[in-house]
Amino acid sequence: MSDLPTTVDITEEGPREGFQIEPGPVPTADKIALIDALAQTGLRRIQAASFVSPRIVPGWADAEAVVAGFTPRPGVEYTALWFNAAGLARAQGFAGRLTLAGSITVTGSEAFTRKNLNRSQAEQLEAQRRNVAVHQAAGVAVTRVSVQAAFGCNYSGAVPATQALAALSDAMVIAAETGCTIQKISLADSMGWANPLQIERLVGAVRTRFPGPAVSLHLHDTRGLGIACAAAGLRLGVAQFDAAVAGLGGCPFAGHPGAPGNIATEELVFLCEEMGIETGVDLEALIGAAAMAERIVGHRLPSNLLRGGGLAAFRRTA
Amino acid sequence: MSDLPTTVDITEEGPREGFQIEPGPVPTADKIALIDALAQTGLRRIQAASFVSPRIVPGWADAEAVVAGFTPRPGVEYTALWFNAAGLARAQGFAGRLTLAGSITVTGSEAFTRKNLNRSQAEQLEAQRRNVAVHQAAGVAVTRVSVQAAFGCNYSGAVPATQALAALSDAMVIAAETGCTIQKISLADSMGWANPLQIERLVGAVRTRFPGPAVSLHLHDTRGLGIACAAAGLRLGVAQFDAAVAGLGGCPFAGHPGAPGNIATEELVFLCEEMGIETGVDLEALIGAAAMAERIVGHRLPSNLLRGGGLAAFRRTA
Repeated sequence: MSDLPTTVDITEEGPREGFQIEPGPVPTADKIALIDALAQTGLRRIQAASFVSPRIVPGWADAEAVVAGFTPRPGVEYTALWFNAAGLARAQGFAGRLTLAGSITVTGSEAFTRKNLNRSQAEQLEAQRRNVAVHQAAGVAVTRVSVQAAFGCNYSGAVPATQALAALSDAMVIAAETGCTIQKISLADSMGWANPLQIERLVGAVRTRFPGPAVSLHLHDTRGLGIACAAAGLRLGVAQFDAAVAGLGGCPFAGHPGAPGNIATEELVFLCEEMGIETGVDLEALIGAAAMAERIVGHRLPSNLLRGGGLAAFRRTA
Repeated sequence: MSDLPTTVDITEEGPREGFQIEPGPVPTADKIALIDALAQTGLRRIQAASFVSPRIVPGWADAEAVVAGFTPRPGVEYTALWFNAAGLARAQGFAGRLTLAGSITVTGSEAFTRKNLNRSQAEQLEAQRRNVAVHQAAGVAVTRVSVQAAFGCNYSGAVPATQALAALSDAMVIAAETGCTIQKISLADSMGWANPLQIERLVGAVRTRFPGPAVSLHLHDTRGLGIACAAAGLRLGVAQFDAAVAGLGGCPFAGHPGAPGNIATEELVFLCEEMGIETGVDLEALIGAAAMAERIVGHRLPSNLLRGGGLAAFRRTA
């Protein structure tokens, strides 16, 4: 039991992931209200917007208005997502409100790279070299590597740990050659394939090969194993996770509309706190934010804990 | 990884648990259709009915008709639940169709015993002695001990492993004094309190104290940790689980109507099969039965996998 971390850092991705996938449009004021509610729960990192093309992702056409509109809370890091120089420039317009850092993104499956990005793996690596140059020219450090489809792919099946590790190694070569200090390696189960054994194998392999950076897990609960995978990560000492309040976001790759996507932040917080691992989050406040998220999108979201409720009320009267 | 079992036995409790809690009435023919569909998935144990008072549980007023109506499938054990001599006598009317075995039932929390059964722990133990005598008089072996509220209780808080173990020990004393050979110790998270660390602690303590009987876990997913707890059990070699197709059943103790109860059988099967553990179950057929369960009750059930779908179709085309 000694490998369990004592504290865990959670990046809340619900607003960014959720408002992108909802048929919407979700009113800008609602997006801002949810971000502000999340900031009051004790969460320390919130991904607040996506600076992407409004033609491709109409749900984030109001990214500027959302980022200008939330009330920054001291101690909370607000982040955003972008995929190119234009997106980075838009984010840099809010350098006072957003914490900016660049990522090198690779995938564990060439089939996914081709289907999702219309590139070969080699072309994706070249694009990542250009991406690093764009960030360095803009004075934004690249500190993170993200491996998408690190566990499985709808187009090529399960991804062996060796294959995900090879993709990660390619990214680490780019980082070394461009002088980037990588602080975080994010392993993403983009399509909901991971099981606890795979988590153990890949986290172990990554740690052995690249012991420096922190490992972060981005897990999907598309098939009900997300929290079990998080528990497997905790057992190995993983202390950084992405999650989405109420399970906002869904999975565009499941082949089933309405399929769950990201693990629910409140279930992750509950898992950690029940096991004695501090998250800094007030679970009851977070469940309140999850209920707000459900009201905003106007349909039921996947979180079981939102239905079942926490244990605090029972503990108070027990 | 060496403690993972190679095969897992699942007792399907969806029909019994689910049709008891639904506001209903669920037509008898629908209950029979679901039981027959479940029997065709490869599940080897199905709890088909509850012989309880129709005044207290109107949803099972048709227990006799259901048990008389399903089509027994070779290789499948059909079981039932009862709480007293009258219920046992009703079940014995179907000795050719049902596999009958008695249980000694204790709880890890005196507060739960008082609230749920209106008895002290001492009175519950006396009731269990009488219960064993009833079964022995009827020629039905008592082979199982069940510890309810083994991990936590809404009325008294978390249940320490020592406390659950003390309740189990009381039951094992009764078994020894009455000459019962206990084959299975079932640890039930009746109110959805368990986390993976508690599973490790209690399963470890039970194994050390009573190494003979198999340990079985009855887990609830009320707060999203059910499958993570199952994974923790598998990691310790636990090879027997209860589950309910689609998560049928709900949790009468959650304090929230519509709160999830039993873990979804298809998520447990998916967890096991993805980790290389055989269940004998055809997951696609089971997802079909889960969809049938949802049609029968007429509302959404908790299973994420039912929404997200399995991976077989992706694997076929990958």
